[in-house]
Formats: sequence, C-alpha cells, structure tokens
Amino acid sequence: MKSSLQLDPNRLFPADPKTRAVAADLYDLVRDLPIISPHGHVDPQLLVENKPFANPAELFIYYDHYVFRLLNAQGFGLDFVKRGGTDAEARAAWRLLCENWNALAGTASGYWLAHEFATLFDIDELPSAANADRLYDQIAEYLTRPEFLPRALFERFNIAVLATTDDPTDDLAAHRALAADPNFRGRVAPTFRPDRYLDPRAEGWAKSVAELLASAGLVDATYENFVDALRIRRAYFIENGAFSADHGVLEPYTADLADDVAADYFARALKGQLGADEARDLAGHFLTVSAGMSAEDGLVMTLHAGVIRNHSAETKANYGADFGHDLPVQAEFTMNLRPLLAKHGLNPNLHLVLFCLDEATWSRDLAPLASFYPSVYIGVPWWFLDAPDATARFRAATVETAGFYRGSGFIDDTRAYLSIPARHDMSRRADSAFLARLVVEGRLQLAQAEQIIVDLVTTIPSKTFKL
Amino acid sequence: MKSSLQLDPNRLFPADPKTRAVAADLYDLVRDLPIISPHGHVDPQLLVENKPFANPAELFIYYDHYVFRLLNAQGFGLDFVKRGGTDAEARAAWRLLCENWNALAGTASGYWLAHEFATLFDIDELPSAANADRLYDQIAEYLTRPEFLPRALFERFNIAVLATTDDPTDDLAAHRALAADPNFRGRVAPTFRPDRYLDPRAEGWAKSVAELLASAGLVDATYENFVDALRIRRAYFIENGAFSADHGVLEPYTADLADDVAADYFARALKGQLGADEARDLAGHFLTVSAGMSAEDGLVMTLHAGVIRNHSAETKANYGADFGHDLPVQAEFTMNLRPLLAKHGLNPNLHLVLFCLDEATWSRDLAPLASFYPSVYIGVPWWFLDAPDATARFRAATVETAGFYRGSGFIDDTRAYLSIPARHDMSRRADSAFLARLVVEGRLQLAQAEQIIVDLVTTIPSKTFKL
Amino acid sequence: MKSSLQLDPNRLFPADPKTRAVAADLYDLVRDLPIISPHGHVDPQLLVENKPFANPAELFIYYDHYVFRLLNAQGFGLDFVKRGGTDAEARAAWRLLCENWNALAGTASGYWLAHEFATLFDIDELPSAANADRLYDQIAEYLTRPEFLPRALFERFNIAVLATTDDPTDDLAAHRALAADPNFRGRVAPTFRPDRYLDPRAEGWAKSVAELLASAGLVDATYENFVDALRIRRAYFIENGAFSADHGVLEPYTADLADDVAADYFARALKGQLGADEARDLAGHFLTVSAGMSAEDGLVMTLHAGVIRNHSAETKANYGADFGHDLPVQAEFTMNLRPLLAKHGLNPNLHLVLFCLDEATWSRDLAPLASFYPSVYIGVPWWFLDAPDATARFRAATVETAGFYRGSGFIDDTRAYLSIPARHDMSRRADSAFLARLVVEGRLQLAQAEQIIVDLVTTIPSKTFKL
Repeated sequence: MKSSLQLDPNRLFPADPKTRAVAADLYDLVRDLPIISPHGHVDPQLLVENKPFANPAELFIYYDHYVFRLLNAQGFGLDFVKRGGTDAEARAAWRLLCENWNALAGTASGYWLAHEFATLFDIDELPSAANADRLYDQIAEYLTRPEFLPRALFERFNIAVLATTDDPTDDLAAHRALAADPNFRGRVAPTFRPDRYLDPRAEGWAKSVAELLASAGLVDATYENFVDALRIRRAYFIENGAFSADHGVLEPYTADLADDVAADYFARALKGQLGADEARDLAGHFLTVSAGMSAEDGLVMTLHAGVIRNHSAETKANYGADFGHDLPVQAEFTMNLRPLLAKHGLNPNLHLVLFCLDEATWSRDLAPLASFYPSVYIGVPWWFLDAPDATARFRAATVETAGFYRGSGFIDDTRAYLSIPARHDMSRRADSAFLARLVVEGRLQLAQAEQIIVDLVTTIPSKTFKL
Repeated sequence: MKSSLQLDPNRLFPADPKTRAVAADLYDLVRDLPIISPHGHVDPQLLVENKPFANPAELFIYYDHYVFRLLNAQGFGLDFVKRGGTDAEARAAWRLLCENWNALAGTASGYWLAHEFATLFDIDELPSAANADRLYDQIAEYLTRPEFLPRALFERFNIAVLATTDDPTDDLAAHRALAADPNFRGRVAPTFRPDRYLDPRAEGWAKSVAELLASAGLVDATYENFVDALRIRRAYFIENGAFSADHGVLEPYTADLADDVAADYFARALKGQLGADEARDLAGHFLTVSAGMSAEDGLVMTLHAGVIRNHSAETKANYGADFGHDLPVQAEFTMNLRPLLAKHGLNPNLHLVLFCLDEATWSRDLAPLASFYPSVYIGVPWWFLDAPDATARFRAATVETAGFYRGSGFIDDTRAYLSIPARHDMSRRADSAFLARLVVEGRLQLAQAEQIIVDLVTTIPSKTFKL
Repeated sequence: MKSSLQLDPNRLFPADPKTRAVAADLYDLVRDLPIISPHGHVDPQLLVENKPFANPAELFIYYDHYVFRLLNAQGFGLDFVKRGGTDAEARAAWRLLCENWNALAGTASGYWLAHEFATLFDIDELPSAANADRLYDQIAEYLTRPEFLPRALFERFNIAVLATTDDPTDDLAAHRALAADPNFRGRVAPTFRPDRYLDPRAEGWAKSVAELLASAGLVDATYENFVDALRIRRAYFIENGAFSADHGVLEPYTADLADDVAADYFARALKGQLGADEARDLAGHFLTVSAGMSAEDGLVMTLHAGVIRNHSAETKANYGADFGHDLPVQAEFTMNLRPLLAKHGLNPNLHLVLFCLDEATWSRDLAPLASFYPSVYIGVPWWFLDAPDATARFRAATVETAGFYRGSGFIDDTRAYLSIPARHDMSRRADSAFLARLVVEGRLQLAQAEQIIVDLVTTIPSKTFKL
C-alpha cells in the first residue's frame, strides 16, 4: 500500500473538470480569509497560559471525542484515554491511532487529522504501526517550538473571533485576563450556556439553581429571582464580550406559561414535586423566557437540539461525561417551537440559530421556518454531520427553499484547537463545490456565486452573530 | 458583478458532458409537449375576465407567497404585500425584490422568476437596485400588450388542461362561463376541495356544514345528509368537468367508523361535544368516506399531507391566511392510511395520489405503498420541494422501489400563473437529467429512457388523473 | 425502440471518466471474489433435492415478491402468482412480466433480472410482448441443462457461505443432509429466527410457545423453561452450523425486566391477560434476553427493524403471508435500544447488526451508535433499499461518521436464488463507485480504497459474522 499523505489541492471539489475549475476559483476567493468561529469549546485557559501542548496523544486523541469514540467502537475500550498520562501511555494511545488509521478512513475526523498532520507537522505518509513512533517523535519535537504555542497558532490560524462555551456562574477570569493582556490581541468571547439551570429534570438542578442565584448575588430561590439571576449573569457575560447564549436540549420543546404558573412549577420543582409533563413544560418555558431575554439584551440564541447525553450508564460511571457517547435522537422544530415563535418569532432583535443532528429536519423544518420567520437562522451541519457529503446534503436540502442568506455561516463547535483551520477549510471547499455545481448547471451566475462564497465566511456569520 | 440573466440552454443538466448530452436529447423530446396541469390554484376568473395584469408587483410578488415569504424572512415585514395597492406601492414592492435578488439565489422561486423574466419579458440582466425601475417599466409595458392577456398566455403556454381548486359550495360560475364561451377553447377543470367540511376541528366547522347542506339543497344536519351533500356536490363538480378531489391535511390519519358511530360523532361534533380523539377519528373517517366516494364516482383523490396552516398567530391576525406561514410537519402514511386502504386500497377505480413535504416518507412510505397497492400513486415533490435537487432526491428515493410508472406526473400547484411553464420546464429538465444518469450508468437503455421521458408528461399524468 | 439487453461493463460506475476508471479498477479487485451470503431466505431443500427449476415463471416471479408486487401495483392482481401452476399459467405470468417490462425500469428488481437474463441465459434483448414466448422457451431449455441444477449454480456463483433462515423448532434435516452429503461441499448454515416466540402479541403465540418447549424437550410453560428452550434450540442450531440469530420486529423497542416481573408477564401473557404496554415490554425484554444469549453463545444478533407485516388484510386472507405487502414503518434505535445496550452493549462477544428501511436512521441512529458501541454494526441497505442509489446514500450517510469498518458487509436477504450473484455484483459496483469518488475528491488514497473494497467483501463480513 502506498502511504502518501500529500494533500490534494483540489480535494473535496467535484470530479467533473469544468465544475472543479469553478469550485477552485470560488475557493481561491475565501481560502485565506480570517476564521470567524462563533461557537466552540476551546478552553480559554489554553490561551491564557500559552504553554506547549503536552504530547501528540493529548493533542489529537484526548481532546477529541470523535477520535477516541471510534477507537472504542473498534473494541479498544477507553482506558487508553488518560489525560495527563505518562509519556509511555501517550505513546501507546498514539500507536493505537496509527495502527488503526483505516478505521478513520472516509470519516471527517480522519480527513481533519490528515490536514493537520500535513499542514502543521510536515507529515507526508499515512500513519501506521510501522511509523507510529517516528511520527510521535516528529510531532513532539514540533510542539516544543515557539510557533506551536497556542497564541502563535491563534495568529497563524488567522482567527478573527473565537467563542468559547461557559457556565453562567463562571467568573470569566480567563476571558478578562486575555482582554487585559497587552500581548494578546485576539478576540476571544465567552458564550452563555445555561442548560443545567433551565431544565428541572437535570441532575442536581436545585443545587445548580442555588449556585446561579449566588453568582448573581441573590438569595431567595424564587422564580422571580431565578429569572433575574439569568438576566444578571447574561449582562455580566455581555460586559465581557459575549455575543451569544447556547442551549443544548434533548428536544426543542417550548412552552409559554403564565408567570404565576411558572412560579408555582418552579417552587414545586425545587421541592421535587413536579410531574413529568410539568417539568417538560417548565423546561420549555425557560427556552421561551431565554428567547425573550435574547430579544431584549441582544445575545444571539443558538439551539442545539436532539441529543441524548451519556447514553451508556456504564461508560458514564467509569469515565464521566463527554466521553463519546452523547448521541443524536429524532427531532422536530415546527410544532415544538410554535409557542416560542408565537411570542418572539417576529421580533427583529431575536436571532435564533437552529442546529440539528436529525437530517430529516433540514428540508422539513429548518429551511421552511427560516424562509418565513426573520428571527430563525439555519445552523450548519454539526458534530456527526460536520463533513463534506453531509454539507452537500445540507445545502441541497435548504438552499432551494431558503437560499444562502438564512443560514448561520460555519461553526466548528470543537474543543480540538488544532482542527479549527481544517474544519473551516473543509466547509469553504464544500460550499465552493456546491456553488460550482449550481453555476455549471445554469442555476447561478458565476458573479452571484462569487458574492455568495465570500458572504458565507464574512457578512453572513457577522450578521447572524451580530459581530 | 456581471449581471447577465441569459438562460443557459443546458440548465439543470449534469455537468458531465456525456450525461449532459443524453439529458439534452431526452429533454428535446418533451420540451414542446403540451402542459398538463392537473392540480393548481389559478383563479379561473382570471381567464373569464381576461384583463391585463395590473403591474409587475402583483404578478410576481402579491400572487406568490414563496417570494414574499422570503422577503419577510429578510426582515422586511409583510406590509409591502398590498394587493391592489397604488402604483407607488407596487413599485416599492418590486424594488424590494430587485434589491434583494441575492436572497433568492439558489431557490426554486429565483429560478422560476429568472425563467419568466428572460422568456416572457426579454430581460437579460440580474435585477438590482440600479435597474429596478427600468425593469418595472419594461414589464409594465409588456403587460399592456394583447399577447400578455391571460387567454393569450394560456395558448402560448400550450396548456392542455388546467385544474383550479374550488370550494364544494362554489357554483363554478367561472368554469361554466369558460365552457360556454366560444372564444375560449382551453380545458379548465374545477377541483373539489372539501377540507373545511371534513374536519370537525376546523374553524367554523358547524357553519361550514350548514353551508354545504344548503348548497346541496338539504336541510337537516344529519350525518346521512352530510354524506349525501358531499356526494351531490361532487356530482355537480363532475358535471362541470372536475376530475379530482383534493384533500389537504395536517396528518394523513384515517379511520373507518361504523355508520352509527360516525353519525353519533357527527351529531356531537355539531354540538361541540366531541373529544379530541373522537374528532381525529371523525376527520380520519371522512377521508375513508371520501376514498369510497372516489372509488364510486371516479374523482381522483389527491392527498396533500403534513402541513400546519397559519403557523404564526400574529401574522394570521394581521394579514390573514395564505400569507407564507403554512409550514411542513412530520408525516407518516403506512400506518395512518391502513384503515382507508383496507377498505378501498385494492379497488381499481380508486386513484389515491399522495403528496408529502416530509422527504423521509418518499422511500419509506410512498414508494413501498405504491409498489404494492394499485390505488396508490406517488405525488411529485411539492411546494417547498418543487425544485431541481429535491426532484433528483425524489426520483432516487422512489424509482428504485416503484419505478417511474407509479408516480403522478408533474403538478405545479401554483397560483402564480406566469410560473406554470417555468415549473413544468424545470420538471422536464430534472427528469431528463435523472434518466440520463441512469442511461450513462448502464441502468436503462436509451430507448427505455426516451419512452419514459415522454410518458412522464403524457400517458402518466393522463392515466393517473383519468384525463 | 431498441431492445438491447447488453450489459454495460461499466454499469453503476459514475459518468465522470476519471472516477469511472478508478471505480473500474477497484471493482476488478473484487469482481471474482467468493460470495459471502450471511443472511438470506433460500430454501435449503433446493440444494438437497437438486432438481431442475420448474419454469421461468417460478424462477423469476413466484419466488420474488419484489417482482409480483410491482405487477400487482400495475393492476394485474395476484392470481397470476400460482406456485406449481400449469405450464399455461406459468407462460401467462411470464408474458405479463415481459409485456410490462417498463414497469420495472429503474428498479433494483429490473436491474437484477436483466443481469440474470444476460449472464445466465444469453438473452440480449429487452423482454416484450413480442418476444415473451420465445424467451420463455429459451430459458426453459437452459433450465433442463445440468449446469442449471441448484448445486451446479452454487459452485458457478462461487458462494463461500450461504445462510438460510429457519424456525427454532426446525430439525434442520436439510442442513444435516447437506453436511452429510459427500457430493456437496458448499457451506450452508441455518439461522435462528425466533420472532413468533418472542412477541406475546404475535398470532398464535401460546401455541408457538408450546411448540418451542416441545422441540427442546421441556414441558411446563414457565418463563424459566421458555428461556431454557431458547437456549437449547440455539445450541442445536450452533451444532448444525448456525452463526447468527435473526430478529425481525415492527419496532426495535427493548426493555430489561427483573426476572420475577418477566416471569409474571410471561404467565399472564399465556392466559391472555397482559396489557398492551406490558406486552410491548415483554417483547422488548426478550430482545434484551436474546442479546444476552448472543453474548454468551456467540450467535451474531441481526435486527431487522421497522416492518409491518401483512399490511393488507384482504391480501392476507386471499393469498397468505409473504405476498408483497410487508411494508416499512418509521424506526428509532437510539432510545429504543438503550436498555439492551446498557446491559450488553460493551460486551465484546455481542455482535448486534442493525438493519433498517427508514433511511432517516442511517446518519441519525446507526452510524453514531456504531461509532461508539463496539457491539453495534451497521447493516447495509436492505430489501426496498438494496439498490444502487440507496447504497450511495447509505455510504454517504454512514461513512463520514463511522467509517467503513463498522458496517456489516453486504447481505442479499433473498429467496430468489438466481439473483444472488446479481445482488452481490451490484453491491461491489456501488461500493467501488463510492470509494472512487472519495479517491478522486482527495479524501482517500487509492491504496486505502483498494484495501477497503477488498475488506468489504472478505474480512468485514467474516469478522462481523464470526465466520
């Protein structure tokens, strides 16, 4: 087997020579434009500390549940994921990845890693059992260089904006430190992520409520105080640069309760006396309340819907959360969001960006909603679907109904820092390929496509996220 | 930016030169064949009066909820949609469309408008703020010409059959006038659309029942009379040229109640004493009753399922119904239709054409049902999905299971009169492209594809709709 | 119309010349490799008796519900399906097929038949009314030749393994006869298919339970004995070469009941005293029990989910089961399988292969589950979806998340013996086409694709099915 990892300069472009040429021309217009990353999970402390990455395993495996999830599926268990392990453990984990490189063939993760290996570490061969140790050493050596420090990479990656994801009680010390640091000029914004407070069914909810109240300087656990606390903490986030609030839910169910009903549910929820339907309604009500706050304070509301967290109780018990077993479930928006949209859907100050892992919603729910409601934006494919073919399906499923200008722009949603350029590059290539097809099929003028491909990475995310 | 609106003669054909050549050859066989439009929403009065269209805004915006919906989504509200407004208002609405032309880029609506502008109004530049007024004047001038009168366009469009959609109590005066007019030789057929009578949950249902009975010359609001009234009005429609009855429902749920149960439900529904499940069953029962009538009187039963009407209460209150906020919802046919199909599914006289906006049903429900039940026909993509890529997905999702001959043939379903040729042309191109791929991939002989592309616009709609 | 049925050597490969060339090269690596058929419905008696096939109608129509279903949908009813009918009846059925050859155009069935006609019977013209009798005679003559006996075809087809599907009470006499026959060296394995025992809602369930107990030499109809009987019969199947147990269900709902609860439900189910929810839970519990047995005894568990059997009561009454009206329904795995996976999902000895007719599950449920749980394998498209475009959609929907190595390998699932090579060939071509696209788009190295295409028909099915 040949083992070249040379990146094809025309990768992800369609095979047809004419379409490929148009795609390449479109891509040339955006390949070097700055990265806007309005939603992600990079730890801001990384940039505050600006220390070298520990080793290749930490960098490419421990941070990346996409990768270790696939190795678990191959039967290797999860013990190899030892954050802060010894060098021997790190080497063993890395070797596992190299030996099983074919397991990632065709996956988005494999594609990103190949991009990172080639562009950052000058690796031009496929990882394998034979070269695992050598590649480990090569990467480890690069990681010691100053240009591989997180801040140097931030500039090299040409990141214009990077949003993190943060708990509402977070003091945002890292963000404040970065903002105050004269040696760092990047824009790193926090994101308000209140899930564990907004669903009375969440583990430890009453305790979370108490924490939230405390963080806002409030005492009594009343519904009114709770809502005030959310408002206070949102204001604190905005003060520190936040431009969006992110909501991750099992289902995008919304409700609009009268104040006294909501207050009653809230009080009973704290006592553990809320029925299942009432709890669902209260969680749905808090989404509507959040949308109302967004319409007021301007935070863009992103909604990531249709995920069951910690599917395997055994894995949760042994390894904890975020261990690769959050999984997609069926989703439905049009009926579920109706109460929220009835109250705030026509408000020009609300930007509600809908992300979904259930593709059936793209043409059925998201594109039709976003082609009527000015508040609704179609979120790009995300997570399991952040991949070339899924992107092509996404554009095909949404553009014919809603065009290009009701979408969110690309979002990498990653905690794998080094994968950010690879992901944005993939998105730019995939969109260039889609637009090129429309041009060659006589559905768009080339000049229109040229405008759109640039807008997709500049004005569209800027407008959607109010940057 | 270049601004050419020249139509590519090979538009919608695949990029690959060999496939494109086959597609072009197939398309040549059908490009000039007459248009069969067995389901749509053109107002027959348009043809009776045969007056010039008022202005470009009325023509391209006010009649087209696809278009003004997208402008609403861009944040322009809906006030600009002023049917019968002043010339200044019409100009302003038109300018809004031209200024936001890119919002429609890639959409089916944008594609149709480009087709209409180029083929009917000799417009060869992209609409924009700069040329909006000039284009308005150009179109307005054309509209004064005799060849732009509705009847002249009917002939120019080469429409063999045009079906309208009509209330069962309608006296069909317009259709009778057209039929009696020696100066009009076109075939314009009414369609029986009984939705508001068949669902006890519909707004004003009791009043609707009274109206239906009155239109049939019946008095007592009994179940028996109600069913008779439906039968009487269907006969009246058939007498006046109708060949189909159209049913638009939130869900294609069917039931088959015993007569006495149905009569009891009906009586209680009129008194507002029916429970939610009973009301659902009664509505489902009326679908089965309607299928039985279709099997008797021969009206083709079309079922458009999976739509929530008037999603935004605020828009409904401010602007009324049909204002761009009817939206798709999840749909399921195989279990829902079982009672109806158990009673009438094997009846050779029933033609039941299923349309759906939830793509998941295409390969899962529609193609399998239509590849067994002789009564079931697969409706083409409709409304939000009446577009090139959606058509390709539709064919790919249904043909491998059910072939080409269990489909309905194309249906434009439009109230935008001038878009009819653009839509049928799009469908013919998209089907040519699909067939060409099968030929080049060695899955069909060219001679088979030649037969099929012609059948798709001739024998298939004729047989499905009993023309 | 031309009538050539010459098979295009490049059929199913993409039109683009470069991609086509890569696809052809990949296909060359696997075109002649042995067929592994780990799940299907061929009657083993066919090979025991090794008698000539009766006639073309029996061979291509009576055995193939895909084919006679489509003729029923064309309005010809089902009376023509007369297994063991007279020669005149067989000729009439065959003529019906030939006259309606266009009804199958574009379908997978039409594609397979064309392959069989051309490769086995030297037919180089499209079937039609004109040549129906001549083709009948030609095929009938071939069927008398020794090389068309079932065993000769088994060798000619190069079948390495052929699995049948068998009732747990079956004595497997046919399999034993084949194994004992020194003149037959093929591997023909039974498959344990316990559906009618595992769902208390199944017709005649109590009687089935009694039969199962009897077949295991047990008497009392207790829960414990029932579970033992399953275990005993599985052991008997394993003894006779079985490597998998197949489960076909309306929904993949699972539950994990405490032993005493299960025993109580079981007892009450036998008395007809179980509520609907309890019955559902008991059926779901038996899936979990079956998974536990698979983890113990090693039988691969295949789950074919989302099918309603005998949709038309009238057809069932007139013709019986398996008459073309089993139909797909919506399916959901992630929530439904959670109880089963909580108990056995991380067990390395469990292989759980999930097949589904609801495409929405491919990217949403199956690929994510299989990219985390080592026990879960993604079943290839099946039945209505066993077709070129569906295969392309399947790969695109699953590979980017789960790669190629979490899939099952191809499964023909057929009772149409002669279609086996056509189906495997189609799968090999479709996968070659998919891989070629990834190569040309720079997403896979050619060497990787060469490895994968071979693994897809060798190591992947072997490992998944523990061959």
